[in-house]
Amino acid sequence: MQIIAPRWLIPIEPHATVLSDHAVITDHERIVQIMPLSAARIAYPSAKETLLAEHVLLPGLINTHTHSAMSLLRGYADDLALMTWLHQHIWPAETAHVSDDFIFDGTTLAIMEMIAGGTTCANDMYFEHSAVARAAVSCGFRMGIGCSILEFPTPYASDADGYIKKALASRAEFSGEPLVHFTLAPHAPYTVSDDTFSRVITLADELDLGLHSHIHETQDEIKNSLKQYGVRPLERLAALGFLGSNLVAAHMVHTSDTEIALLAKHGVNIAHNPASNLKLASGIARIHAMQQAGINVSIGTDGAASNNKIDLFAEMRLAALLAKAQANNAEAIPAWQALEMTTLNAAKAMRLDDKIGSIKVGKQADLIAVDLSAAATQPCYDPISQLVYAADRSQVSHVWIAGRCVYQAGQHLSLNTGETLNRARRWQQRIKKEA
Amino acid sequence: MQIIAPRWLIPIEPHATVLSDHAVITDHERIVQIMPLSAARIAYPSAKETLLAEHVLLPGLINTHTHSAMSLLRGYADDLALMTWLHQHIWPAETAHVSDDFIFDGTTLAIMEMIAGGTTCANDMYFEHSAVARAAVSCGFRMGIGCSILEFPTPYASDADGYIKKALASRAEFSGEPLVHFTLAPHAPYTVSDDTFSRVITLADELDLGLHSHIHETQDEIKNSLKQYGVRPLERLAALGFLGSNLVAAHMVHTSDTEIALLAKHGVNIAHNPASNLKLASGIARIHAMQQAGINVSIGTDGAASNNKIDLFAEMRLAALLAKAQANNAEAIPAWQALEMTTLNAAKAMRLDDKIGSIKVGKQADLIAVDLSAAATQPCYDPISQLVYAADRSQVSHVWIAGRCVYQAGQHLSLNTGETLNRARRWQQRIKKEA
Repeated sequence: MQIIAPRWLIPIEPHATVLSDHAVITDHERIVQIMPLSAARIAYPSAKETLLAEHVLLPGLINTHTHSAMSLLRGYADDLALMTWLHQHIWPAETAHVSDDFIFDGTTLAIMEMIAGGTTCANDMYFEHSAVARAAVSCGFRMGIGCSILEFPTPYASDADGYIKKALASRAEFSGEPLVHFTLAPHAPYTVSDDTFSRVITLADELDLGLHSHIHETQDEIKNSLKQYGVRPLERLAALGFLGSNLVAAHMVHTSDTEIALLAKHGVNIAHNPASNLKLASGIARIHAMQQAGINVSIGTDGAASNNKIDLFAEMRLAALLAKAQANNAEAIPAWQALEMTTLNAAKAMRLDDKIGSIKVGKQADLIAVDLSAAATQPCYDPISQLVYAADRSQVSHVWIAGRCVYQAGQHLSLNTGETLNRARRWQQRIKKEA
Repeated sequence: MQIIAPRWLIPIEPHATVLSDHAVITDHERIVQIMPLSAARIAYPSAKETLLAEHVLLPGLINTHTHSAMSLLRGYADDLALMTWLHQHIWPAETAHVSDDFIFDGTTLAIMEMIAGGTTCANDMYFEHSAVARAAVSCGFRMGIGCSILEFPTPYASDADGYIKKALASRAEFSGEPLVHFTLAPHAPYTVSDDTFSRVITLADELDLGLHSHIHETQDEIKNSLKQYGVRPLERLAALGFLGSNLVAAHMVHTSDTEIALLAKHGVNIAHNPASNLKLASGIARIHAMQQAGINVSIGTDGAASNNKIDLFAEMRLAALLAKAQANNAEAIPAWQALEMTTLNAAKAMRLDDKIGSIKVGKQADLIAVDLSAAATQPCYDPISQLVYAADRSQVSHVWIAGRCVYQAGQHLSLNTGETLNRARRWQQRIKKEA
């Protein structure tokens, strides 16, 4: 058993709360108590104590939309529009290189970056799901593994049927593994047919699976849908029955008031990706209006090829700042709401809120400590403001996932950093040579 | 003499250039050579060599708009509109606490944060100029000290005349000090009268001083000017003769095409403050259009009470990302242009481009090294992309100002960090108690 005793404790539930001189007691992978430190020392005299005198303790951050292995393509092509970037750079590189090894190495690199930055769980979407799962499990990292489904062939599968078969096979292979689960991820309305969407919906219902898709990322996507289907993508997906509380809709940059009401009605979860949406000039999502409508908004980094950070500290700060200008309201998305988006809202989006997303008795001990003693976060009037608006991910001092300390004082305890970086460099040499 | 030998050297001049296996030779405060490392070792056999095997070496970053001492009010009031924030929170706290000690301690705290984040020079604007100058000189930090001029009384002076007298007295006190210079900073069009602007213009002409002001920060400022003066602030300032190449116009969020042409015609320098403009819901400046019009655009953090970081890595990334969505063009402000904005453009804005802003023989050795070996910046296809889109300020490993190493391996070599942080905490206790 362990007593973790921070200067400040932010449990996320209840809202906007900061506790002082409180400790969290963990037993193996679970949180068993939250109580004043003095009482904890009496109640658990033999527990190991981790005293964090200048730190905030909070739930691990959760990234609800990423393509982890794209870390190997970070900075490979920048300053380009989405379709040029995809068609002329990213898809050719993926076609040439994506393989089990590429995905394992890239996912491990992304997990190394995420853990060091206080992220303990990610909602991934890519290929070679068994490699993704092996990387997550080997690093002790929690992951929702979105199995991409497309109509066209990639090195991974040749058609929708092939992608679905591989998804189910990976899911069976890792059944019973507590850190990973699988979701169905039809890539986007413009790459997936009505028939495939219908098949995915049926399968998700039968197997009680989560869904994950890119929706309304760009104006072009909407224009093309109007041309091809006569309706905007969201309307088409609603008619197919794709909208529900098991869906994480990534991006959702362009929405009318009617569409926001539709998303709210169906309980769709949003994965807002502010940096990627700016970098590809896709636009700025209306997250303040979504929040006001009662939609569950969470935050994703997208892949490192379009961000180029996998850094939820940077991302939640950007989300909070951008929402104010977008809504023309400096009170929109205050700091505590941005913090909820990267913790409890994200856990809900991944259907893991019974397990993670807040510091609550019975939940998993997915916890991070952030040292606020640096000049950049002093003086400290309000730890929530410091976390969202001032702190860097480099101030993360400790990371626990399911009670296991995976990172402490700059050292990774669950992965081989030298090997991970060497492999990344080898991929770079190969990709660059063949470009 | 010293040989600094990085893996990559980004001299800023010429544009978008990355040199490999090149060294910079410094002699006391100046750069005396840039040459291949092998040749440097032969030419300067007795020079001390600093080998930076996984690093980029570039000019120190330059922050063209900040109120350094507001670091003591970081997180004091967040998530509020500009006028509520100023009138109900910031101005009352300043009235109660701003003093020589407050300014010295707050400026030192901000300099500690800036140096650790790779910023070697700042264009400040606040009160108690002698205290600002003492802080900069004592930390070995380069600074342009903007002497605020207002019509109304503050604890520092009672009217425009009083502010101007104090500005000139501080300037005389520090004459001949190589690291600091003074500029006249009429606060904003809405706090300064025509008469005072005219007087400032005459004085700046006579003494060859730079000018620094907040202009077109919010829509309200423009509306009120139309009501009071019948014209928008920029038109009023143009008529008074305030616009020129010695002016740093901070914010400039709202601009018509005509106004952009006017700014270009007069050679006005822009200090773009993207984070502060988002946080206060002021808006998003049109920096791509400004850049296209030939305007010199640089980047500022604004004060830590409205950002809340004094972090040019975060700020240049945000500037580059935001410009793409604002201009609806993913090619707007590519990474190398964002890097120019925080180096050479900024040096031009501060009229210091004969001394700093690029790595060039004869310029001051204001240099920073950034370690790109972390997972977050691997693999590295393009060091400029990594610096702008992926690197954190915590990856800054070395900082030299005028040839003096002021920061290395996480240690400050020119200031007492413990004392600086203790003083910040004491101010917080006092400010909080009296709030």
